[in-house]
Amino acid sequence: MSAPSIEAQAVRVAYPELREFVGRVFGAHGLPADRAGIAAEALLYGDLSGMTSHGLANLSRLYLPLFESGRVDAAAAPETVSDTGAAVLLDGNRALGLWSTAYAMRLATERAERYGIGLVSMRNGTHFGCAGYHAAVAAEREMVGVVAANCGRQRIARPPGGRAPMLGTNPLAVAAPAGEHPPFVLDMSTTVVPTGRIRQAARAGEAVPDGWLADDAGRPVNDPAAFDRGEAHLQWLGGRPETGSYKGYGLGLMVEVLAALVPGAGLGPVGDADRPADDDIGILALAIAPGTLRSGPAFAADSAALFGALLNCPPVDPVGGVTYPGWHEGNRARQRRRTGLPLTAPLYDELHAIAEKLDTPPPRPLSGDGSAS
Amino acid sequence: MSAPSIEAQAVRVAYPELREFVGRVFGAHGLPADRAGIAAEALLYGDLSGMTSHGLANLSRLYLPLFESGRVDAAAAPETVSDTGAAVLLDGNRALGLWSTAYAMRLATERAERYGIGLVSMRNGTHFGCAGYHAAVAAEREMVGVVAANCGRQRIARPPGGRAPMLGTNPLAVAAPAGEHPPFVLDMSTTVVPTGRIRQAARAGEAVPDGWLADDAGRPVNDPAAFDRGEAHLQWLGGRPETGSYKGYGLGLMVEVLAALVPGAGLGPVGDADRPADDDIGILALAIAPGTLRSGPAFAADSAALFGALLNCPPVDPVGGVTYPGWHEGNRARQRRRTGLPLTAPLYDELHAIAEKLDTPPPRPLSGDGSAS
Repeated sequence: MSAPSIEAQAVRVAYPELREFVGRVFGAHGLPADRAGIAAEALLYGDLSGMTSHGLANLSRLYLPLFESGRVDAAAAPETVSDTGAAVLLDGNRALGLWSTAYAMRLATERAERYGIGLVSMRNGTHFGCAGYHAAVAAEREMVGVVAANCGRQRIARPPGGRAPMLGTNPLAVAAPAGEHPPFVLDMSTTVVPTGRIRQAARAGEAVPDGWLADDAGRPVNDPAAFDRGEAHLQWLGGRPETGSYKGYGLGLMVEVLAALVPGAGLGPVGDADRPADDDIGILALAIAPGTLRSGPAFAADSAALFGALLNCPPVDPVGGVTYPGWHEGNRARQRRRTGLPLTAPLYDELHAIAEKLDTPPPRPLSGDGSAS
Repeated sequence: MSAPSIEAQAVRVAYPELREFVGRVFGAHGLPADRAGIAAEALLYGDLSGMTSHGLANLSRLYLPLFESGRVDAAAAPETVSDTGAAVLLDGNRALGLWSTAYAMRLATERAERYGIGLVSMRNGTHFGCAGYHAAVAAEREMVGVVAANCGRQRIARPPGGRAPMLGTNPLAVAAPAGEHPPFVLDMSTTVVPTGRIRQAARAGEAVPDGWLADDAGRPVNDPAAFDRGEAHLQWLGGRPETGSYKGYGLGLMVEVLAALVPGAGLGPVGDADRPADDDIGILALAIAPGTLRSGPAFAADSAALFGALLNCPPVDPVGGVTYPGWHEGNRARQRRRTGLPLTAPLYDELHAIAEKLDTPPPRPLSGDGSAS
């Protein structure tokens, strides 16, 4: 039996109302107001774009426990370790990654404005939400943005042929402007799916497709619960050896190198039994400013032409259309900014409980006519 | 029936002998001696590392025709269009990509030495051989290197759901040092395989595995000849939609953006019927110098620990082992530098024919005792 759609059972809340609420929650845990506002925006990007596994649902599941255990230091800010002009090494100081990564990306774009390219490399990072949100900051400034993070010392995926997990799901995001179209935003784990998709299927009692999980012998496993029982292993993008598992593994290593080896953050394969595995995350924020190297308007025209041509590609199925990563997400976000965000009833109840605990008003649902009730 | 192994039917030639021969061939076509030597090294990297589809076999198939048609200008060198310190935009001037990309990467490492990061972005590029060769230049200098190229205006792969090809196979390479171990060198097409693998199978009359080719309806096609008949389409890394075709497509677009949109090179989706499709290739050469941001020895120790830990991962199959991209290739190259390169008899005959035409001595095969006969 399939569950009713999220939209059907949803409570709808206006975006500014939610942003203010989440900002108040972060503020109540010690984030200065301006940082809390940016962190709220980063978190809600997941709900706006439809990547709900990285949105509001993580507030009580992930972020509040990180504050409470002291693993995220809400009052901290990243500190400059070294600065060579175009490149900056930051110690993230366990500041909230949702905000500190946005800070890193803004710094990268400032350096790119001066040097053509800007790299901000951060160790001691913490969870940053959707990689795509941070990369898109560059696209808003007519730049190309690249954001990647390893998962600290977490060991989730095995190298091909290996019996022990060694690397995280190592997300990578790339963004570029696309003229009047929504920006190109690739936001992906380097494993075939992130672990959240496996656990979501396990909770829903649904089988997962061939290619997501495999046993020691490489045979597909369709029961998602086998993953947390240690009987099935998350596969790399590319699937089987003959269809490119070595490439997915290599891309996971690319992220490990760029995001964690460069700044000297925790490394999955090296490990350290004495620290929580997902501390000391390594984060890469890279911006390229083509407008410093060639005519900005020419770059803008070429961007619009590139992504416009893809949208105009004749489709195989006449009712379907051709798009690019970020197109659906951008359109969905644009619409939800206008019409509000649909929250499942259990998620809305969680926000209520948080509000009660902090003695702050909960976000008001929209009534049928679109006004806050 | 499977063909006898290449090693069995091979003529073996010493590496310095081949390098000198290829240098003479490039020199005879107008490359100054120092550039010809670097181009020879870049070409032979394919044969040393085992990526033979991008090695010597391309001399008469690809590079000599490019000289003869004037599409590569052997006497040309890249020209600086703009320079912001950490970033340089080059016009490749149709110089031989095997050399000009090595030039671009060396320039990127010099800038990274001063600014922490160095970007060289090139338009009007031509075929550069193995992306991994160029990325590895950075690893030799204790840096991280990234090299990518689009395929100019060539249209090979379709966007998911599209009826027309729009993008090339868009190669990407990333390299990093690994201490005493061979460097990490990821060198991949963003499609599941490059087109050479399909045509190789077609020539050998061998079926290709599920996941390489599909028809309009997405059904697997195993006959490789269907690709050049237009009846089967090359798939992206990730395969089917539920196993990540959108990620492979997104990575292809990432390369299109970084390598071609940034410098203003030819773009696959935009096209231009008036020019040969594989002219005006866009090339990215990026170097990061971690030793400018944190202790160089600490970076070197972390690199060695990262890749050493992967080699020590317990294997599923006790006789197999766990490696990383670049390990096999590096070891193979190390051995072949000592013992010579195995060339198939037809390839050796091709080199003989080139030598005869240019009135230069052909490369001498090694005798059984390892001396040139």
